[in-house]
Amino acid sequence: MSEPEPTPPQTLLQIVAECDNFVVPPSASVSGKAEEEALASWHLFPDASSPALGLIRPIILAQLKLETTNSWKFWTHNNVDKVSFADHIKTPKERSSIMKELCERWRDQGLWPGQIGPKKWRGEMYPIYRHPFGKLDAPLGSEGNGDDIEDDSRNYAFRMERSACALFGTVTYGVHMTVYQDDPEKATRNEQGALENESCRIWVPKRAKTKQTWPGYLDNSVAGGITCGITPFECAVKEAMEEASIPEDIVAKYAKSVGCVSYFYRTNAGWLQPEVEYVFHLRVPLEVQLQLTPLDGEVESFECLPLKEVVAKVRSGLFKPNCAIVIIDFLIHQGYLTPENEPDFLEIMTRIHGRFGYERW
Amino acid sequence: MSEPEPTPPQTLLQIVAECDNFVVPPSASVSGKAEEEALASWHLFPDASSPALGLIRPIILAQLKLETTNSWKFWTHNNVDKVSFADHIKTPKERSSIMKELCERWRDQGLWPGQIGPKKWRGEMYPIYRHPFGKLDAPLGSEGNGDDIEDDSRNYAFRMERSACALFGTVTYGVHMTVYQDDPEKATRNEQGALENESCRIWVPKRAKTKQTWPGYLDNSVAGGITCGITPFECAVKEAMEEASIPEDIVAKYAKSVGCVSYFYRTNAGWLQPEVEYVFHLRVPLEVQLQLTPLDGEVESFECLPLKEVVAKVRSGLFKPNCAIVIIDFLIHQGYLTPENEPDFLEIMTRIHGRFGYERW
Repeated sequence: MSEPEPTPPQTLLQIVAECDNFVVPPSASVSGKAEEEALASWHLFPDASSPALGLIRPIILAQLKLETTNSWKFWTHNNVDKVSFADHIKTPKERSSIMKELCERWRDQGLWPGQIGPKKWRGEMYPIYRHPFGKLDAPLGSEGNGDDIEDDSRNYAFRMERSACALFGTVTYGVHMTVYQDDPEKATRNEQGALENESCRIWVPKRAKTKQTWPGYLDNSVAGGITCGITPFECAVKEAMEEASIPEDIVAKYAKSVGCVSYFYRTNAGWLQPEVEYVFHLRVPLEVQLQLTPLDGEVESFECLPLKEVVAKVRSGLFKPNCAIVIIDFLIHQGYLTPENEPDFLEIMTRIHGRFGYERW
Repeated sequence: MSEPEPTPPQTLLQIVAECDNFVVPPSASVSGKAEEEALASWHLFPDASSPALGLIRPIILAQLKLETTNSWKFWTHNNVDKVSFADHIKTPKERSSIMKELCERWRDQGLWPGQIGPKKWRGEMYPIYRHPFGKLDAPLGSEGNGDDIEDDSRNYAFRMERSACALFGTVTYGVHMTVYQDDPEKATRNEQGALENESCRIWVPKRAKTKQTWPGYLDNSVAGGITCGITPFECAVKEAMEEASIPEDIVAKYAKSVGCVSYFYRTNAGWLQPEVEYVFHLRVPLEVQLQLTPLDGEVESFECLPLKEVVAKVRSGLFKPNCAIVIIDFLIHQGYLTPENEPDFLEIMTRIHGRFGYERW
């Protein structure tokens, strides 16, 4: 595949809007007409008060209606199509089992090969939660895997194949870590308080050309999806080694949790991908020698770039869009991007901490 | 007035929910019934595509309908009452003039004395924006005051008396700054990466017992509303001196813009107060002697409290609710509160960066 071409410089809001590019419509418009493609909602229980786990496109709803497994229930409420697990399906274990069989069968039948075909299949299990911003209490290592859970008292509802999540519009979770070095003594402030620091450099990987998504684009220093069984911090430690060869003791000593970003991405093909990314900063003191190098083949190469150059590449569209958002969050967090030097400061801040609107369905 | 009493310890989400306590309902529910009190929306122009500036309670709508000034236009759209300036009102200057006359007359007539009565009147002008997260381009000092503006090409739409904003449900803007000292060498990390630092102390003021709102409650080190004509950073500098006697050069040297919080607060009496607060951190190195002292009478006293004690007071409901949110944002920003040690991490992060939902009206 070819390298991405730089775009003419864009505003940071334009960059944010490439990633946070979808607003969930009201569950039914006042006129009763659906907006664009009519989405159905997917619920845990066949009950109007059960919160939506995801939004489902008409082609997926139609396919589910062909199922003969007696695992599904369909109904409508306020003219919106609804689908849930059938009444007798009550535990994470049962739901995980149904989803496993369904997703593997659809894959083997060749349905949606661009999403769950052999080349797209991840073989990684993602947790699905009742409330996407509630306690992320998927079972951890010592509790066995999520397939075993028969008790349905957690926020954790079940688990499913990573690549199939976009077919069902469920929220997925990841970790993004910015690894940087700077000399705080070199920081200067302009008259309106914005910081500048010529010494600040960020480690920027280029994604391998063989990646299924966004090949050749720039990425955050360390990033990965949170599969069932690990915490965000454990995920950061694991990905730091796997993607960038950063020793565990360096992450344990210098990584700092600084918040999260959340945004609603709809792919060009129409798939729904609301995402939450926990954000970590790893500031390595200048006196510590650190060289990020690819390990698992996800990354082609690393460069340690001056902050200004990173921002220029963000504006030129060379970063994977959600990674650009994490860089913008870094700029705000560190005092480089302020209400005075960024006209879209508030729009950016609220857009990158979105709530998806599923609670209204 | 009496001192606030500490509550039994609450979760941080409960504390957040005391401040972010209102969700704007859909502009019309599917059944056509209004939820609770039927709110009307206030627009700049008599046009369904004009974004809502605020939400108005039925008693205010009824009062506006008694106006004989020919300045207002009323209509309904999708069964929702709408009010806007009349067609011939087209400039910030005209709108500011109408609002000034109206608010002063209502005050003098004794309407809503708990909001705009003589004891509540602030004599401060707040900017109103077309898009509340757009460019905050109210005229600055050198451009004259907002009363003068005849050109309507800005995001700035007009200005009005601060105390009247809640009558119209418009978004208001402020600055909150946390002044703290710590020894970074004393920071420790637990196994899941959360920071602790026994040396971290925050300057915490107690609000004067004579304050109209939240007397005797704890506050952020420096806080104030952004009136027309100043930038967030200028506001931080001004309030730091006025409220806490912090010299301008200290703010200029150490203050850092770190983002913002936004939340929708509805008062016990039912008034609507969506608020945006720009957040600054002022970390004063340990070797710098700094004593915060009250200057303008808004604050009764200052204490420099260990972080743990500050958190305990937040949980006990002793902070003004929106100031508690700023402390929680500080804990997240600095790595003290993490996805691993706070079960409501995501709910808190997304609730304190809310978008109000006016764009759906």
